[in-house]
Amino acid sequence: MNLKVRKGEQRDIKSILDLITELAIFEKEPTAVEITVDDLLNDGFGETPVFKIFVAELDTKIVGMALFYERYSTWKGRAIHLEDLIVTQKHRGKGIGKVLYDKVLNFALEKGVKRVAWEVLSWNTPAIEFYKSTGALYLDDWNVCQISDKSIQKYLGK
Amino acid sequence: MNLKVRKGEQRDIKSILDLITELAIFEKEPTAVEITVDDLLNDGFGETPVFKIFVAELDTKIVGMALFYERYSTWKGRAIHLEDLIVTQKHRGKGIGKVLYDKVLNFALEKGVKRVAWEVLSWNTPAIEFYKSTGALYLDDWNVCQISDKSIQKYLGK
Repeated sequence: MNLKVRKGEQRDIKSILDLITELAIFEKEPTAVEITVDDLLNDGFGETPVFKIFVAELDTKIVGMALFYERYSTWKGRAIHLEDLIVTQKHRGKGIGKVLYDKVLNFALEKGVKRVAWEVLSWNTPAIEFYKSTGALYLDDWNVCQISDKSIQKYLGK
Repeated sequence: MNLKVRKGEQRDIKSILDLITELAIFEKEPTAVEITVDDLLNDGFGETPVFKIFVAELDTKIVGMALFYERYSTWKGRAIHLEDLIVTQKHRGKGIGKVLYDKVLNFALEKGVKRVAWEVLSWNTPAIEFYKSTGALYLDDWNVCQISDKSIQKYLGK
């Protein structure tokens, strides 16, 4: 398998957005992706990038990616949040996800952060079992809350 | 009620760490807090601060705080993560949490982010009901995963 994992670059953004969209479909939220190529270019490769990406290239085609950024734990200190870990359906089961995961964990160790965290769907058992097998904790009593910009406006009457 | 909400400052760090510790006890993780006053000073008030804080001051005593930072949604774009929203036990039920919450949401609107997100314990029903009443979504199928620096080292054999 001619697999290469490297930092994502501007020329990869279209492939990255395709992967993001594929993941949203897998997560049963096919219409949730509002982000554009321009947003990703500005936010990831502008003056103050707010995330980093590793891409997995198989025979020069991008087949997976990990997108992450720094966050903070008030219990442990500096941490990394792994926002997305995606391998395109056709190439799952080949260990590509693990290579990307390991790359992010290596990066985290080099950075000296105290923790890497991410969110997982409770029905995604294969993913949860994989994470547990690496020594990660699956905190099934911690759930996610979100409020959108539109709901904030409505709530604040603005 | 002589309540003032303002940006947290270096002189507030001791009170902030007390609140963090109180929250860990409430969350049944009394020994989880490894962070120190120096960590919080370096990470929040150093050359590149990685979080922001609002504190709630009641008659010059700090009784609550909200700690947050930027994160990124690959579906929506720039977002804010509310890491901690804490009011000391003695002063709960007075609406202080709501004032801090609103302050963070106002900040998010001013920043133009697309979403504010946070994590909540599934048994913390009063908190969940409050969040829902503001228009937030409670995603009970999304759970948290974490791997510590020590577990990363073990997993990667380093």
